Amino acid sequence: MREPASEVGRDALTVPMVAQRAGVTPSTVYRRWGDLQELLSDVAVERLRPETAPEDTGDLRADLTTWAEQFLDEMASPSGRAYIRDALLGDPDGGNAGRCSAYAAEQIDVILGRAAARGERTPGTETVVDHVVAPLMYRILFRPDGLDAARARSLVALVLADTE
Amino acid sequence: MREPASEVGRDALTVPMVAQRAGVTPSTVYRRWGDLQELLSDVAVERLRPETAPEDTGDLRADLTTWAEQFLDEMASPSGRAYIRDALLGDPDGGNAGRCSAYAAEQIDVILGRAAARGERTPGTETVVDHVVAPLMYRILFRPDGLDAARARSLVALVLADTE
Repeated sequence: MREPASEVGRDALTVPMVAQRAGVTPSTVYRRWGDLQELLSDVAVERLRPETAPEDTGDLRADLTTWAEQFLDEMASPSGRAYIRDALLGDPDGGNAGRCSAYAAEQIDVILGRAAARGERTPGTETVVDHVVAPLMYRILFRPDGLDAARARSLVALVLADTE
Repeated sequence: MREPASEVGRDALTVPMVAQRAGVTPSTVYRRWGDLQELLSDVAVERLRPETAPEDTGDLRADLTTWAEQFLDEMASPSGRAYIRDALLGDPDGGNAGRCSAYAAEQIDVILGRAAARGERTPGTETVVDHVVAPLMYRILFRPDGLDAARARSLVALVLADTE
């Protein structure tokens, strides 16, 4: 499914094209996904799933800063933005958007859990979601001017300020 | 344009339908908007534009809390969510999403400007965007569980904590 989208461009992609490449009939695709947007939404979520655990440097601030910078890099890239939009659509119940958010929360959980195990004080996962993930994602989608790695770092510094 | 969408439902709406209701030919609509998604995106932004200045109670915390609760109410409603999605789409350069964000920032500017004029200490507009608007919008789109007025109030309390 990756190939047809990149070969012909997303706007020209059709279900028959995907079916042909997969060696199935279009009705097989329609039966599973209903329409192209739902299929693209599922593909997008799969592409947004982290493939590795976050880096472990032994320091909460360093780990969370590295993670936030990478998250911004990936999500703000043209393909990241396209995946986010696809994930938000073709999925009226919001399940795919929820999965994207769960991926981020799980990575943060790992980072905070390691820090807590070392005896460091940590904010809660939902606090990091509200004050690091949310500003980054909101700005990617709605307010991209001035969004850069320095902003990601300062959001992390701020959310950790109360714990240090 | 409001009527056809609500009469037939968004998914069944077509450009010829909109053109007929507006008393123009479909080519007039295509010339201005390119496709239905771009038209719906422009309609969505228009519907998301605030119609009045934010309430003025003479107190920063009260004004910002009231504004955040109303913002959440409007954006989290089924029609609000549909408008946000439409505004994000059919607009590859992100201009309509930027307009949505600018509307929120302008309302916050008014509230903070009034407070500053009264001699109150205030956070910056971008700080309120990052720590009140962004968490609300992120959760509406990606993580709606547990999102309620109490969360809006606590986000406002937190962003004002450093200024009080």
